[in-house]
Amino acid sequence: MYEELRKSVCDANLELAACKLAIYSWGNVSGIDRKGSIVAIKPSGVEYDELTAEAIVLLDLCGNIVEGELRPSSDTPTHLELYRNFKEIGGVCHTHSAYATMWAQAHREIPCVGTTHADFFYGAVPVTESMTTNQIKEDYELNTGRVIVRRFEGLDPAQMPAVLVAGHGPFTWGKTAADAFESAVVLEETARMALGIKIINPNQKGISQVLLDKHYLRKHGKNAYYGQKGEC
Amino acid sequence: MYEELRKSVCDANLELAACKLAIYSWGNVSGIDRKGSIVAIKPSGVEYDELTAEAIVLLDLCGNIVEGELRPSSDTPTHLELYRNFKEIGGVCHTHSAYATMWAQAHREIPCVGTTHADFFYGAVPVTESMTTNQIKEDYELNTGRVIVRRFEGLDPAQMPAVLVAGHGPFTWGKTAADAFESAVVLEETARMALGIKIINPNQKGISQVLLDKHYLRKHGKNAYYGQKGEC
Amino acid sequence: MYEELRKSVCDANLELAACKLAIYSWGNVSGIDRKGSIVAIKPSGVEYDELTAEAIVLLDLCGNIVEGELRPSSDTPTHLELYRNFKEIGGVCHTHSAYATMWAQAHREIPCVGTTHADFFYGAVPVTESMTTNQIKEDYELNTGRVIVRRFEGLDPAQMPAVLVAGHGPFTWGKTAADAFESAVVLEETARMALGIKIINPNQKGISQVLLDKHYLRKHGKNAYYGQKGEC
Amino acid sequence: MYEELRKSVCDANLELAACKLAIYSWGNVSGIDRKGSIVAIKPSGVEYDELTAEAIVLLDLCGNIVEGELRPSSDTPTHLELYRNFKEIGGVCHTHSAYATMWAQAHREIPCVGTTHADFFYGAVPVTESMTTNQIKEDYELNTGRVIVRRFEGLDPAQMPAVLVAGHGPFTWGKTAADAFESAVVLEETARMALGIKIINPNQKGISQVLLDKHYLRKHGKNAYYGQKGEC
Repeated sequence: MYEELRKSVCDANLELAACKLAIYSWGNVSGIDRKGSIVAIKPSGVEYDELTAEAIVLLDLCGNIVEGELRPSSDTPTHLELYRNFKEIGGVCHTHSAYATMWAQAHREIPCVGTTHADFFYGAVPVTESMTTNQIKEDYELNTGRVIVRRFEGLDPAQMPAVLVAGHGPFTWGKTAADAFESAVVLEETARMALGIKIINPNQKGISQVLLDKHYLRKHGKNAYYGQKGEC
Repeated sequence: MYEELRKSVCDANLELAACKLAIYSWGNVSGIDRKGSIVAIKPSGVEYDELTAEAIVLLDLCGNIVEGELRPSSDTPTHLELYRNFKEIGGVCHTHSAYATMWAQAHREIPCVGTTHADFFYGAVPVTESMTTNQIKEDYELNTGRVIVRRFEGLDPAQMPAVLVAGHGPFTWGKTAADAFESAVVLEETARMALGIKIINPNQKGISQVLLDKHYLRKHGKNAYYGQKGEC
Repeated sequence: MYEELRKSVCDANLELAACKLAIYSWGNVSGIDRKGSIVAIKPSGVEYDELTAEAIVLLDLCGNIVEGELRPSSDTPTHLELYRNFKEIGGVCHTHSAYATMWAQAHREIPCVGTTHADFFYGAVPVTESMTTNQIKEDYELNTGRVIVRRFEGLDPAQMPAVLVAGHGPFTWGKTAADAFESAVVLEETARMALGIKIINPNQKGISQVLLDKHYLRKHGKNAYYGQKGEC
Repeated sequence: MYEELRKSVCDANLELAACKLAIYSWGNVSGIDRKGSIVAIKPSGVEYDELTAEAIVLLDLCGNIVEGELRPSSDTPTHLELYRNFKEIGGVCHTHSAYATMWAQAHREIPCVGTTHADFFYGAVPVTESMTTNQIKEDYELNTGRVIVRRFEGLDPAQMPAVLVAGHGPFTWGKTAADAFESAVVLEETARMALGIKIINPNQKGISQVLLDKHYLRKHGKNAYYGQKGEC
């Protein structure tokens, strides 16, 4: 059951390690089957070289284990909160990839300073509010999801598949577990460039709305003309 | 037809990925046969591990497809504008390689602060003007080529085989597709060093004209004495 | 005798080189058998690609060689001082890994600016006092151990498995030689992130005590709920 | 004739590329047979993957070719000037390795800020004066050697096996070609750390003379006690 989902989630987790976005067990990817409302996620604390598709844990959207011998990732309540609120997403990824984490732990959004960023993210990658003492002490992982969802009031998760949790690190998402992983790769590269740009020209604020629209919309939406799939 | 051209363009594109100058499909190399006025370029949105010489698209200098099943790179109009205006070049390369892109998106030329740079580029690597709203909205990729050509008024593309498009990233060129790729590699290494130099000594402006002449001209032009080909 | 100890110490030393935490012979890992009070350590100046388990030197806690043809690491007196004073540790690791060494040689503690750090280290990673002329001239390596031990007055080595020796570099430890190596890996990644955070936001001081407690204690101690081993 | 010398020089050149201290043909290593006064050096402009021991050029100390089909490195006059003046050295290495080159092109010596540096270099790595117009226009490569030799008035090349040529890059040396290569590796790592230290603590000036003496002299000279070769 859900063999394909489990495999895709396992593969995306293994890619995290292969692409050096996560060492030890510092990251996790999940995927959801929207029809069955079943989430597949990495088990907690398992290192990537020991991970198999069989070890992936299946849960319902309330966090009840449907199948799996192991305890799910401790970040599971965050993933579930995202799936419950961002209806169009099919995969979630959490890493401590170095550059994205630097921005998150510096409590700074990643400004949209260039077309590399604009090709993928429609604007600055937002950073959440710091969590309160109560939010940290009780239901920390669930509340992590809640501060993300709150930060996205007025934002479209489909156009902004990433967030920085202040003091912590990035969460990314996409249509599938593989897409969520891809968002994490692009975020990391974008975060790396943004650091260098800040050193070279600290006054560089960001590209114009018209250039952002041009780059984002030539790759996304109904008028996209990048790649082989859009209309010519 | 044009099998060799196609193969050399495919190889240069594959080198982009192998040398980590481009991830996913974020880069493209083209080459031109000047006799037949035929340009060979990477298809749009195709990832490097799926790229073959057969998939390379052939076009005339007006952008009409001569051969190829796939849509050409969305940056094709930029490449063509460069071929039409820089008559001596035989290959063009576009990447979002991290360090060169940092300078481009910081809207800063790469100063010629040392002999590594002077061995290859005859002066600071120029950055274009920001594009206007109209230039972005209509014929964006063609206009990208136009702002590059305009920036090169008074510059010799043979002595300066690179440009930074402001807010976007680098374009490089050379006598062949392979040379254009080599320009991209050297540009990236030069951009990386320039960032460190800026941190160590922000007041370092650049080397003297006499040292620039010495290094550039010992490798290029009729009095070159570097390598095995010049006169002794 | 102590074959397993020797092998584990050899393996941890080889990991140092494989993970690029040490080049040439710039690092050493030791392990202790607490029952027999026998310490196993890398021989001095031997490069990693020539290291075998047989070459590992066995000593008692006073530094007398129990078995081994080669001279032990010149840092041995530091290791022994740590074993004599930090009774609960079973392995010690010393490297000149680049980022951790930068902080040590800058005479700056690594602030606890985020959860990546808090997951592993309970607070800022401390830096020792500079050593006095006398401490350097006589029994330098033993005194290196003494300034570490002195710096840990009021700190729990089990909750803070790393120290930066001012002007020199990091020492890390853990329950075993392998754990000491893991501490070195995490320290290096943490030090790398802390450098970037300092550039992005120089005013970022550190996370709150409640977030530190949350992250550290969900992975360590009797109420830990991360991984597969704690109580659910 | 001089087969072993040629092989050792070829190997050291190949190591440059393998360790990513040089790309394309941006570096060269030479070695000398002091008895025969024969210098072996890389041919000019040959890329590392095409280099063989047979291609290594043999010259006398005046620069006359003794054996070899190819033209020697354009930097040969610099190497020869160093061999003529630094009698105790047996190998010379020139690279544009990124971090060492940053310091050279920033016209800044690499301060001795820590023990990693002090283990190998007895003090700050010096930077030469800028070369004059005349020194650049005539006999540039020979004059490069001369400004290095002039900078070493009062310095011992055996205790300081590296120099930064202002605006250009590093030259290193040692007892053999392999040692000269090792000096280049250590210089690069030291330069990398020094850049990070400068960011973390711009006021950090350098370690004390007593700590420098301790670290340098425990590895070098007659009282050395590091490694397996010194007296115990």
